[in-house]
Amino acid sequence: MAVDVVSLQDEESRFYGCLGSRSLCGLLPPDAISQAMDQDGVTLLDALREAGLENVPHEALDLSRYRGFLEAHIEQGPHLEAAGNRVGVVDSIVGLGGRRFRFIGEQNHAGTTMMSIRKDAATALFALAQGINDAFSALAGPRSVWTMGRVEVRPGAASIVPGYAELELQYRDPSMAMLDAFEAEVDRLVKEVRSRDQATVEMSASRERIAPVKMDETLRVHLGSAAQKHAPGQWVEMPSGAYHDAGVIAALLPTAMLFIPSIGGVSHDFSENSHDEDIVIGCQVLADATAATLLDN
Amino acid sequence: MAVDVVSLQDEESRFYGCLGSRSLCGLLPPDAISQAMDQDGVTLLDALREAGLENVPHEALDLSRYRGFLEAHIEQGPHLEAAGNRVGVVDSIVGLGGRRFRFIGEQNHAGTTMMSIRKDAATALFALAQGINDAFSALAGPRSVWTMGRVEVRPGAASIVPGYAELELQYRDPSMAMLDAFEAEVDRLVKEVRSRDQATVEMSASRERIAPVKMDETLRVHLGSAAQKHAPGQWVEMPSGAYHDAGVIAALLPTAMLFIPSIGGVSHDFSENSHDEDIVIGCQVLADATAATLLDN
Repeated sequence: MAVDVVSLQDEESRFYGCLGSRSLCGLLPPDAISQAMDQDGVTLLDALREAGLENVPHEALDLSRYRGFLEAHIEQGPHLEAAGNRVGVVDSIVGLGGRRFRFIGEQNHAGTTMMSIRKDAATALFALAQGINDAFSALAGPRSVWTMGRVEVRPGAASIVPGYAELELQYRDPSMAMLDAFEAEVDRLVKEVRSRDQATVEMSASRERIAPVKMDETLRVHLGSAAQKHAPGQWVEMPSGAYHDAGVIAALLPTAMLFIPSIGGVSHDFSENSHDEDIVIGCQVLADATAATLLDN
Repeated sequence: MAVDVVSLQDEESRFYGCLGSRSLCGLLPPDAISQAMDQDGVTLLDALREAGLENVPHEALDLSRYRGFLEAHIEQGPHLEAAGNRVGVVDSIVGLGGRRFRFIGEQNHAGTTMMSIRKDAATALFALAQGINDAFSALAGPRSVWTMGRVEVRPGAASIVPGYAELELQYRDPSMAMLDAFEAEVDRLVKEVRSRDQATVEMSASRERIAPVKMDETLRVHLGSAAQKHAPGQWVEMPSGAYHDAGVIAALLPTAMLFIPSIGGVSHDFSENSHDEDIVIGCQVLADATAATLLDN
């Protein structure tokens, strides 16, 4: 058996999240390629034409040719560096879900509108957001994270009771049961805020839910053995908090994944980088684990 | 004695809040007129020049000439109409204060940054805002109002832990003691949020505090008697939730104020209006109360 090396395009979703791996696996919706457009209005079809790939047939994964898939990646986080580790063997890729909330109240004068008749969109937003932080903190597992990164309050003036607000929530966990529990809690809290008869609350899914993915046990053992050889005592098993192509390919092939440290934990920035010696260790671990996989009976 | 009728300019602060009454009363800070500029960058000096008022001396209130000041105003709120009243006799103008909060956290990846090491500016904002709503609700008097109308969370993306946020709080009450109690509560809550060692919180006064002002008892009685004559059983004593020129002039002269109903309670909008018959009643009440004041010994 031989080894194929692949560089998968557009994991980060200029056109479509994990475009390369989804295309390779035949997991793209029918119109995804013909409809995709980046935020500057460039269509994927134009980009393919410009790259001279217009008439190149798309690769399809031939499952009979592969024993598994191994992905190497920068951690995009601070954990390995902070603990003095050189390699992370991923045990699972966290799943994620999201909710968008719209609060519809009544815009009014902040001096003359008594509290009892207000329908203040921001008041409802604060109550829901603080409720989510309290409830999720009580439920959370060691790898749960949640974020309310987008908040809009309108019209946004100190002496006007806000008539409209938006909030976006995202939550991630390696366990599907935790994602379910988070969503049940959000449903309960939305009902509670709605029952106050102030601003109304609308809720929708802000994104398609991504299920958590467990990495293949055998491949993880090979990566762990190789890590112990090249970085003895300086490697660790860990979940991936970010999503990766390995999450797509795991649906079809035994899949595992390794991380090397991010300098300063920096990610999604031009200064994102890894030390050369860590890149070398990562390549050695990847090569040894690949060889061990080929030697498996 | 005669009666002077005055229309005071710029109560609403195109250039400076209650510019006309403050100027009349000699209560403007030294540089107010030379420094004032509207939000489009037009200076007050240019506006005076353009209106041909550049060399017109400013009026100064001659206290020896007046027994008091009566102001008539649209309610800018729904109370009179909702209760079927035609006239409101103002007993006090509420005071107000404000606080601006800046939350400085650390912007980070919403997937890979564990909760335990986050410094999420929005989390601190939600905790403070909800704390204020809870604490103020417990303290509030019947005419207390408070508003958090301005909220900014940056960078404002669903999968980025917010590194920076701003919140603005305004509170009003007819009693100085309540304003003091609100501010003490805010101080306590800011300390509590700071003690969590997540995002840091900076607080500053968002505006000069305006003290509540009681209307003159004798003038109120005159307004009430006239209201009972022209709108028997359809008038009420009430505080003013908005600030007015009467609040400035009350520092120098016995002052009182009456309201007529706002149609639909609408204010600060081109559709703000009053019924003609209510305007007539208001004028009659004002005239009778003025006559009664002149006849006082």
